[in-house]
Amino acid sequence: MTTDTTQAAEASRYARGWDKLREIDGQAGERVVQALADIAPDFARLLIEFPFGDVYTRPQLDLKSREIATVAALTAMGHALPQLKVHVHGALNVGCTREEVVEVIMQMAVYAGFPAALNGLFAAKEVFAERDREAAGAD
Amino acid sequence: MTTDTTQAAEASRYARGWDKLREIDGQAGERVVQALADIAPDFARLLIEFPFGDVYTRPQLDLKSREIATVAALTAMGHALPQLKVHVHGALNVGCTREEVVEVIMQMAVYAGFPAALNGLFAAKEVFAERDREAAGAD
Amino acid sequence: MTTDTTQAAEASRYARGWDKLREIDGQAGERVVQALADIAPDFARLLIEFPFGDVYTRPQLDLKSREIATVAALTAMGHALPQLKVHVHGALNVGCTREEVVEVIMQMAVYAGFPAALNGLFAAKEVFAERDREAAGAD
Amino acid sequence: MTTDTTQAAEASRYARGWDKLREIDGQAGERVVQALADIAPDFARLLIEFPFGDVYTRPQLDLKSREIATVAALTAMGHALPQLKVHVHGALNVGCTREEVVEVIMQMAVYAGFPAALNGLFAAKEVFAERDREAAGAD
Amino acid sequence: MTTDTTQAAEASRYARGWDKLREIDGQAGERVVQALADIAPDFARLLIEFPFGDVYTRPQLDLKSREIATVAALTAMGHALPQLKVHVHGALNVGCTREEVVEVIMQMAVYAGFPAALNGLFAAKEVFAERDREAAGAD
Amino acid sequence: MTTDTTQAAEASRYARGWDKLREIDGQAGERVVQALADIAPDFARLLIEFPFGDVYTRPQLDLKSREIATVAALTAMGHALPQLKVHVHGALNVGCTREEVVEVIMQMAVYAGFPAALNGLFAAKEVFAERDREAAGAD
Repeated sequence: MTTDTTQAAEASRYARGWDKLREIDGQAGERVVQALADIAPDFARLLIEFPFGDVYTRPQLDLKSREIATVAALTAMGHALPQLKVHVHGALNVGCTREEVVEVIMQMAVYAGFPAALNGLFAAKEVFAERDREAAGAD
Repeated sequence: MTTDTTQAAEASRYARGWDKLREIDGQAGERVVQALADIAPDFARLLIEFPFGDVYTRPQLDLKSREIATVAALTAMGHALPQLKVHVHGALNVGCTREEVVEVIMQMAVYAGFPAALNGLFAAKEVFAERDREAAGAD
Repeated sequence: MTTDTTQAAEASRYARGWDKLREIDGQAGERVVQALADIAPDFARLLIEFPFGDVYTRPQLDLKSREIATVAALTAMGHALPQLKVHVHGALNVGCTREEVVEVIMQMAVYAGFPAALNGLFAAKEVFAERDREAAGAD
Repeated sequence: MTTDTTQAAEASRYARGWDKLREIDGQAGERVVQALADIAPDFARLLIEFPFGDVYTRPQLDLKSREIATVAALTAMGHALPQLKVHVHGALNVGCTREEVVEVIMQMAVYAGFPAALNGLFAAKEVFAERDREAAGAD
Repeated sequence: MTTDTTQAAEASRYARGWDKLREIDGQAGERVVQALADIAPDFARLLIEFPFGDVYTRPQLDLKSREIATVAALTAMGHALPQLKVHVHGALNVGCTREEVVEVIMQMAVYAGFPAALNGLFAAKEVFAERDREAAGAD
Repeated sequence: MTTDTTQAAEASRYARGWDKLREIDGQAGERVVQALADIAPDFARLLIEFPFGDVYTRPQLDLKSREIATVAALTAMGHALPQLKVHVHGALNVGCTREEVVEVIMQMAVYAGFPAALNGLFAAKEVFAERDREAAGAD
């Protein structure tokens, strides 16, 4: 295999990941990639290729279930609030209702404690307010 | 309100939680409650009343989504493998396929790292083997 | 048992929790409940009922020891600084001295590392300053 | 200051820590130090000098409160069950009752989730059984 | 680009990762991959492709520094002892001395607390003993 | 041994730690110590004596490797971003390049997940910008 075809295959994986990132996270995902441009552009590429190109494109689980899993995990871990906000957008973008997102975060009080759930709810509250402002501004 | 009626209401919440615990976790959940009997019976009661009586009975999210959230969180947290095994049972009991459970755990490599996902997969492997043995023994 | 008496019993548990929340956390606790009102009012209720109605009202441990345990845990967990600040207020409200609160947080350097202890001390510093300002303003 | 006096001062700090370690953790603490002898003897020295020589000897907090804080933190952190068992011994050695130890661990369900509390309770159960066996054997 | 060439490029990435995995982790790494074969073979592939094919092959950091970073992180995280053991092997395989590995783990007492460092040291002790047995058996 | 010589030995340990803190962390370290002055001056002393006086002065590992280990651990732990920023300074002060620091943080995506690595990279980005401003201001 020539270097050209290897690069083409990598480009395909990148393109597949980029499409999936945009489908799920929308502008919030793009902003993360842009913020990495001057400090670690290679990490932006890995972020597109592995989570989105390799994992989220797998057919074994629907996107709504994937986002429920991610919102749960990011809430439970506690130190990932910026990423939780991106994936609250993501969950809403792929079909979860706000009520479902809130319910997933609330359930985390059982497994990770009330502080993790509280911080998760306040992060979701910011995302909901942001989306309300954008919806109002789009009128 | 008399003490009698308060106790009756608490008994109702307990009964509701116990039914939900059995529906989701089956024998694996009952074993946890039994193991608490001599050290902290009050904690067994709280475990039935709050997570199962108060949270899992809420209609805002279907049980399959709840178990996906819980499997994700317990995998990501990393220190909750015994509970993860109970909820791998739970996820299968409420309608997830083994493939979906594996996929949720795999996805956690993105958010909590490969070690957490690996330990989660090996916990699921033990549960699958246990269920295969029980299915074989039931013939 | 009628639905009315069940609701009454739940109301009693809620009232007991609300009293305990106010006794321990004072205004800092009330602000958390208010902040949940528009995003997850049910979670505010669960927060009052389970931690405060079910756990803190138990007679097996005095409130000062409970707050020492909570300050220690929230410091050690590292991702719960807003809640740590609420419980630094709580510890002082139920009889701990500032010196004792500082000492509990310092001790966490042994178990959770110096970063967790440092972040805990700076959170306590903010609470002490807030209380000083309020005491000055109350003159 | 000569090297001799420096070494003498360090020896004093070590001796102070060793006495405090034995007072709190008893044989369970000594076994940890012995287990380090062939892999990291310097770490055994640091363990005696810093946590026990520097921290636990400070007069700002009584030993019972210190052990309550430590049991809470080790339960909440989730990955420190061997150390939790040492400090369940420690808490009992400095005057906590079994009921108080159980209560502190139960309370962690609120802050760190039910899995952390469950694993903590089962660790305490093992320590209580060990102490019962030793008490029976001592007859 | 045809599907054939895409598959070829992926195969190349896999082969590069597999070589790097064997170089670093040796038999300990291969055993992890084998243990995944029946539960999640796709995860074994991702494990080879992303961490080893994408990350460890990058020229920006030498392998010894990479293993020091990994041993530090796995010790500090606390819930990754099986993976820590694999990477203690890895660190020794790429040129760290036992003394250096012990020192990295000891240092984690400062950042993640003494329990994480203790558990890390005991994991390293097992790896050293295993390598001593294999060296003796190879005579 | 008299109290005077004990105090002298402790003073020596403190001085050794202070020199090492300044060598590694520079002004960022000094600012931490100053911020502790009014809330917990004893903790500032312990911070100088144990991590810097006892651990970083040990000859078993070079300072560059120590800082790689610390940057890795603080990134992976996720709740220690202020301390990570101090040690990004530290790593650069003892000879790491910016590219190496970025690479260590990127590698943490494998072990602690992409959110921890992302937050670490953004912390490093702030430190690099701060150093660029200071370099520009020094002209």
